[in-house]
Amino acid sequence: MRDRSATRRRILDAAYALFYRHGYARIGVDAIAAKAGITKRTLYDHFRSKDELLAAVLDLHHVLAIAQIERWGQRVSGATARMIDRVFADLAGWAARPRWSGPGFSRLVMELADLPGHPARAIASRHKAAVEAWFARELARRKVAAPQARAREIVLLLEGATALMLIHGDRGYATAAAHAAKQLLVR
Amino acid sequence: MRDRSATRRRILDAAYALFYRHGYARIGVDAIAAKAGITKRTLYDHFRSKDELLAAVLDLHHVLAIAQIERWGQRVSGATARMIDRVFADLAGWAARPRWSGPGFSRLVMELADLPGHPARAIASRHKAAVEAWFARELARRKVAAPQARAREIVLLLEGATALMLIHGDRGYATAAAHAAKQLLVR
Repeated sequence: MRDRSATRRRILDAAYALFYRHGYARIGVDAIAAKAGITKRTLYDHFRSKDELLAAVLDLHHVLAIAQIERWGQRVSGATARMIDRVFADLAGWAARPRWSGPGFSRLVMELADLPGHPARAIASRHKAAVEAWFARELARRKVAAPQARAREIVLLLEGATALMLIHGDRGYATAAAHAAKQLLVR
Repeated sequence: MRDRSATRRRILDAAYALFYRHGYARIGVDAIAAKAGITKRTLYDHFRSKDELLAAVLDLHHVLAIAQIERWGQRVSGATARMIDRVFADLAGWAARPRWSGPGFSRLVMELADLPGHPARAIASRHKAAVEAWFARELARRKVAAPQARAREIVLLLEGATALMLIHGDRGYATAAAHAAKQLLVR
């Protein structure tokens, strides 16, 4: 049972690495099985289809991303402006990594833009909503006025900065977005 | 010669429709030739490769998009806040169209995220930079202070609103983004 769960995780990690790097359409189950070091038959024993595998990858990365985000709140206990700076600095640091391939969830939604009913779209929407709700709770905890409206502005700026850093390869977009988010907070 | 240019445009329109709807990876030259009502041989007589065809599609749509944006400035001559509302309302209206498949240029960059040297990436970056520069000029013309910084905030919010409307199917993100852009203008 332990082996089975380790194999499952290995498949998920291989699928994540390949989907994240090359997108969903260009990657087949053969490549995922090869990267995980298993047969295609073993892969299908764990996941009935590439779609089901994608859904499991997204569920896992939703959990990992939320855990990461929660560390932002814990690590920066001082002024809210400092938390905002940290959030956008982490975003810029992530974008500066070699082989950074843009925002995973948003990129997938763009790739599946013509398939609104695809199960991955619903998972991505839930994920983004959870991030926005986390910011709203964190701002409320810090006694910021209108925390939901401010949280929405923060996710708009995060989303815009991520896309524009990918497009231009320029971290200045994260700095500009952090500045805007802080200006909107103190109004 | 007139026929040749009409055929070229027919290929570009077919390619745009298919790439926009289904992304770049999933569409082959066969499908484009079929949609344009020509043979693959004729297509290759105009464009040496799918990459070259994509570059031509992007160049054309850059010109069309900039023409559209310039109408924003001409049509809304009053308060800058009214222009901002119009820009985001147009964005929301575009996103509400049936079969809207997200932002064309950004979506393509996401699809080619692992290929930073792809010629389409450079065209997309130039396009986005031209849009940002247009806003900076328009704000300067309207005597807004720090027009370049404000223009960058507007494109951050436009980019974020477009992605989040695609992710959630909720036009409220455009309204929130317009509100934030206006708040940042009057500071």
